[in-house]
Amino acid sequence: MLGKIDGEAGGRVIESLRDIAPDLGRYVIEFPFGDVYSRGVLSLREREIATVAALSAMGNARPQLKVHVHGALNVGCSRQEVVEICIQMAVYAGFPAALNAVFAAREVFRERDESGITDSPATPR
Amino acid sequence: MLGKIDGEAGGRVIESLRDIAPDLGRYVIEFPFGDVYSRGVLSLREREIATVAALSAMGNARPQLKVHVHGALNVGCSRQEVVEICIQMAVYAGFPAALNAVFAAREVFRERDESGITDSPATPR
Amino acid sequence: MLGKIDGEAGGRVIESLRDIAPDLGRYVIEFPFGDVYSRGVLSLREREIATVAALSAMGNARPQLKVHVHGALNVGCSRQEVVEICIQMAVYAGFPAALNAVFAAREVFRERDESGITDSPATPR
Amino acid sequence: MLGKIDGEAGGRVIESLRDIAPDLGRYVIEFPFGDVYSRGVLSLREREIATVAALSAMGNARPQLKVHVHGALNVGCSRQEVVEICIQMAVYAGFPAALNAVFAAREVFRERDESGITDSPATPR
Amino acid sequence: MLGKIDGEAGGRVIESLRDIAPDLGRYVIEFPFGDVYSRGVLSLREREIATVAALSAMGNARPQLKVHVHGALNVGCSRQEVVEICIQMAVYAGFPAALNAVFAAREVFRERDESGITDSPATPR
Amino acid sequence: MLGKIDGEAGGRVIESLRDIAPDLGRYVIEFPFGDVYSRGVLSLREREIATVAALSAMGNARPQLKVHVHGALNVGCSRQEVVEICIQMAVYAGFPAALNAVFAAREVFRERDESGITDSPATPR
Repeated sequence: MLGKIDGEAGGRVIESLRDIAPDLGRYVIEFPFGDVYSRGVLSLREREIATVAALSAMGNARPQLKVHVHGALNVGCSRQEVVEICIQMAVYAGFPAALNAVFAAREVFRERDESGITDSPATPR
Repeated sequence: MLGKIDGEAGGRVIESLRDIAPDLGRYVIEFPFGDVYSRGVLSLREREIATVAALSAMGNARPQLKVHVHGALNVGCSRQEVVEICIQMAVYAGFPAALNAVFAAREVFRERDESGITDSPATPR
Repeated sequence: MLGKIDGEAGGRVIESLRDIAPDLGRYVIEFPFGDVYSRGVLSLREREIATVAALSAMGNARPQLKVHVHGALNVGCSRQEVVEICIQMAVYAGFPAALNAVFAAREVFRERDESGITDSPATPR
Repeated sequence: MLGKIDGEAGGRVIESLRDIAPDLGRYVIEFPFGDVYSRGVLSLREREIATVAALSAMGNARPQLKVHVHGALNVGCSRQEVVEICIQMAVYAGFPAALNAVFAAREVFRERDESGITDSPATPR
Repeated sequence: MLGKIDGEAGGRVIESLRDIAPDLGRYVIEFPFGDVYSRGVLSLREREIATVAALSAMGNARPQLKVHVHGALNVGCSRQEVVEICIQMAVYAGFPAALNAVFAAREVFRERDESGITDSPATPR
Repeated sequence: MLGKIDGEAGGRVIESLRDIAPDLGRYVIEFPFGDVYSRGVLSLREREIATVAALSAMGNARPQLKVHVHGALNVGCSRQEVVEICIQMAVYAGFPAALNAVFAAREVFRERDESGITDSPATPR
């Protein structure tokens, strides 16, 4: 589930915890991915819409926002849809939150272009 | 657009601004609903998923969270799906945010039951 | 300084701390009012504009926001100007923050009307 | 572990989730209490100091702050120590956060007095 | 209005949105500057005091805080007054928020010195 | 008190304020260290546990979090205990807050290793 959503970006986070807090790495896999994301009810695409919205609005978790922009693109969101979520957050969390989220998304788009990561086919709604 | 999403709850907010800040009432309609929600790209159902997620995570806008739980139920989310978004926020904003969002959602469910408001048919994904 | 700005509302806060945290009551007077507000540089009116803006944007300190809406009206802001600060916060902290601040301000306006508290004459800019 | 720390207050939270989000009730027990609090390394008293500090500083989770003021008193903190944590938060999160935390703590102290809940013996440091 | 307040810094933000979210660039101009800042009621100097205060207190929008430190200096605030607003935020949002705001302001002061941008004459109060 | 807790890291903060906001440097010493930390009631070790928890949870004050990770290690916390506080914050403020705090702590551990700063002997609980 972690690989499906976050691809390499998620794996690198877990890897980076190995020397300092390996149990936190385990919890990150067990609770969010083992428990929550695998519950069904919402599609993975919808879950990533929720997460990109929340992290954009909170505005204090830029690395995780970037991981989940990757995630959204990996499970069927288009780049335009990701940007659209960020724009919507201007309404609820203000323009600075929206702007900083859009700029984080742009960094992810560039990383994917440079690394040759292909977005998943957009999910028909 | 405001009526379609927020139903009576949204109208009451605008109404309540009339004596003190009527222009803010106008902005609430023009920018979020006139500009943002009418952009397409995301479905109304997806936009409400994003908004419920963001307001649950921020944890400081309970009245607006309740308006948008109404909104989500008005545009094709089921109650189970709304609760699911709140649960997911435990991962990104902590358990208190998730718990308080679930309790706000329950208040909305009760209000709808007492007022006889029918949820919209769930949108097939 | 405390009396000049916050009037009775500020005094009640200090009073309410007497049984549980009297030292915190002392710090509230010494640092904000003894040290900061008495520094000059900004006028009291400008300091209250800054504080109402900050507390509106933070969105998690409603009692203190109400104390400082009183404060703003006590040192030369008009009610229209207080509402205007709240509206501006929609840009930086989102519409929920602005709406909740306006509703807190309205409660203060009503309290002042009911208690016969007179706003200070508006300061000419 | 839940009962030891949060006593009845924690049990009521889980109970209240039964009709709307029973899985969230299960997660609240499994992850925080099953996984985190039972890790050792820090004493329960130290863990509650950390939690009361965090919830006071965040300022948007009053019900959970109250549960953990109960928790702190159940595992060896004195009332004076709880108030002291709240006061310290004035430095890091501002005076409104400190004041609102102290007022929440006072409500808990009163509830315990009225319900005849005895604080645990203070842990010698 | 955008040029008057934010000078080149504001223009660069809009420009940088052109490739990824041009509509967000348009909204940033239309709503904050077209609608809000042009309302009168508060002077531009007072509006920038409010914005610098809010962004300092929120602590999660450093690029926008820097744009509005420029803005404050462009519409009649002195550098000393900008620093004073940041210091005041220690009271409401804690010392870390105040320190980080002061350090952001210092970066802006240096940028202006290096680019030869002149502060506007201080507005007599 | 400042030197005892924050060591060189704290001194550098005060020093860096000298040219732009020397009074803020004075307040940082007087209120947090002169008033709050010297109150007794809680041990310095417990105060640093509270501060690391709060700054981890707030997630918008990374430089100050790093200063207080140094502080915790200077007054009797082990590295494992510091990491443990960060992990616990996943429960209350979400996984992104916990992860970013752990990564900030790791930077401090490396700085101490490179600078040859010795952690204080762990305080027996």
